[in-house]
Amino acid sequence: MSKAPLPVAVDAMGGDHGPKVVVEGVISAVNDIDCEAIIVGKESEIKSCLDSLGAGNNPKIKIKNANSVVTMDDSPAVVMRGKTDSSIRVAFQLVKNGEASSLISPGNTGAVMAAGLVLSGTLPGIARPAIATLIPKVGKSKPTVLLDSGANVDCHAHQLVQFALMGSCYARVALPVENPRTALLSNGSEPSKGTDIIRAAAQSMSEMEELNYIGYVEGRDIPKDSADVVVCDGFVGNLILKAMEGTVELVLDTMKMSVERSLSAKIGMFMAKPALKTLFSQKLDPASYGGAPLLGLNHMAIICHGSSNGRAIMNAIKVAKKFVDAELIKKMEQALISFDLKKRI
Amino acid sequence: MSKAPLPVAVDAMGGDHGPKVVVEGVISAVNDIDCEAIIVGKESEIKSCLDSLGAGNNPKIKIKNANSVVTMDDSPAVVMRGKTDSSIRVAFQLVKNGEASSLISPGNTGAVMAAGLVLSGTLPGIARPAIATLIPKVGKSKPTVLLDSGANVDCHAHQLVQFALMGSCYARVALPVENPRTALLSNGSEPSKGTDIIRAAAQSMSEMEELNYIGYVEGRDIPKDSADVVVCDGFVGNLILKAMEGTVELVLDTMKMSVERSLSAKIGMFMAKPALKTLFSQKLDPASYGGAPLLGLNHMAIICHGSSNGRAIMNAIKVAKKFVDAELIKKMEQALISFDLKKRI
Repeated sequence: MSKAPLPVAVDAMGGDHGPKVVVEGVISAVNDIDCEAIIVGKESEIKSCLDSLGAGNNPKIKIKNANSVVTMDDSPAVVMRGKTDSSIRVAFQLVKNGEASSLISPGNTGAVMAAGLVLSGTLPGIARPAIATLIPKVGKSKPTVLLDSGANVDCHAHQLVQFALMGSCYARVALPVENPRTALLSNGSEPSKGTDIIRAAAQSMSEMEELNYIGYVEGRDIPKDSADVVVCDGFVGNLILKAMEGTVELVLDTMKMSVERSLSAKIGMFMAKPALKTLFSQKLDPASYGGAPLLGLNHMAIICHGSSNGRAIMNAIKVAKKFVDAELIKKMEQALISFDLKKRI
Repeated sequence: MSKAPLPVAVDAMGGDHGPKVVVEGVISAVNDIDCEAIIVGKESEIKSCLDSLGAGNNPKIKIKNANSVVTMDDSPAVVMRGKTDSSIRVAFQLVKNGEASSLISPGNTGAVMAAGLVLSGTLPGIARPAIATLIPKVGKSKPTVLLDSGANVDCHAHQLVQFALMGSCYARVALPVENPRTALLSNGSEPSKGTDIIRAAAQSMSEMEELNYIGYVEGRDIPKDSADVVVCDGFVGNLILKAMEGTVELVLDTMKMSVERSLSAKIGMFMAKPALKTLFSQKLDPASYGGAPLLGLNHMAIICHGSSNGRAIMNAIKVAKKFVDAELIKKMEQALISFDLKKRI
């Protein structure tokens, strides 16, 4: 008989909207899929959220108390040195102890990373984990994997190469894609483009037979079908991701305002609304993708937007469950061992 | 009696679509505004374009022959060492000699920059010029100035500070805005965010009383009313700008496809089309802003997208004319002298 699957550990405290949206997301997820959850944070607060949402006695949900909260303004070190009983750390400890399968947190990314580095450690040959975000593509059901989208501000060339290898493993499991086309993000497609670091990474990547390295792609290629995996440092990745989010808002808001001025446009948009709404919620709303995995740790960790709503948390839990079931970490570990990074870079 | 205004010099050869679209743009511009133009490039080709468009005898348009063409793949050095009779260089020489007021080129940005550095030279205290692009804002008529959006791949902190000062001068004249809110682009608003270079630039900028420095803004703030001037290096600026362009296409294309599947949405979008079309052509189409100035040279140079159509060239000429009439370069020079950058950084 196979062992019962482990619950997911969900950090309820670090998000912008407090524990209530997290609890909502957990309830939706355990009702929707075959999955149990441990909600980590201030027990009394979580209990009262569960009660108010009529799930006080749901047998699929447990609470693990954690007294302190890492805020968005806390430095990453706080989670390991100061607030040692924080919800992020307690949740990660559950995963490390084998009491939970994975961690989901809408909290401080730096703190999740710091806790992950100390408690979970990195996969063979990996110096630092990276956040892998899925970007929708025009007319394609399979998105682009963009990494690092925010975990590491300054990156060396060898880190970019590691991100490429992790992104390629991830794309095989997550999209899935057979032989993921892997590219570096640069300011032009010619080999002379890019910073010194980008060009050094390109040189290493072009020599790795295991990697389907296709060269540089530009900013406008990210939402196109130019590559399956796009690699950049976390400073650039964060800026790109947020600029893309801001642009979606720009287009939709400007459209709304321009339509307001014409009656026929108003009626027209009213008629088109259901189709557009589906599009927005399925494709362009970050919440539809749930969280983004922090790749490179020995355990599964999913980082959600600080502003996540219940739907985003629910989808993040589904994503975590999917990757646990698919044994993503084990597959990445095997691939990284076969790449034998230490000898190569 | 005041001197007759000088013509603009337009490089006809370097764009992706050849001289015809450039000639079209020049004809539209000189017909639309009080302005003359010298088209620079292969005389016979330009002549035949002018003839085919019925403007062979337009007294407001002259041709200056230049035998070679700098392609997009040529290294920037080629314009000064190899192809010394290229259209970019010949056009810049006209400006330097006082025969033209400004240069407009849809060609190789690095080559325009190289020619500018050698032939025009930089303004007091400025090490390298930067490209300043206007980004539309939600619900606001005045856009955000983003610089450097592509001229300098690796930047030191003092260059970012120079970009901030130039951007601030430019925003006063171009938007116009009284006391432009000037920000650094970073991966979070807290002072601890950013790379070492970003933090060093922030320190210098916060000490300059002449600059209305407001701190960091994030990627999603660019199309919002968070700042008038947003400063970054040219690698990041290029990626951001292109990712934003790609995202506009993503939203519009995905919308089109999603509407195709529903009859009422199809009818609705048909009714809304005129309003959306106006929006697109006025706000979200890069061609509506024409080109972007290369700020920091002693002469006015406007860089257009390589894929510029006639409308983009026309708008770039109008932009050049506007800045020449407003004496932008002279005003920037005076401001930079008063900042006395050499003593400060």
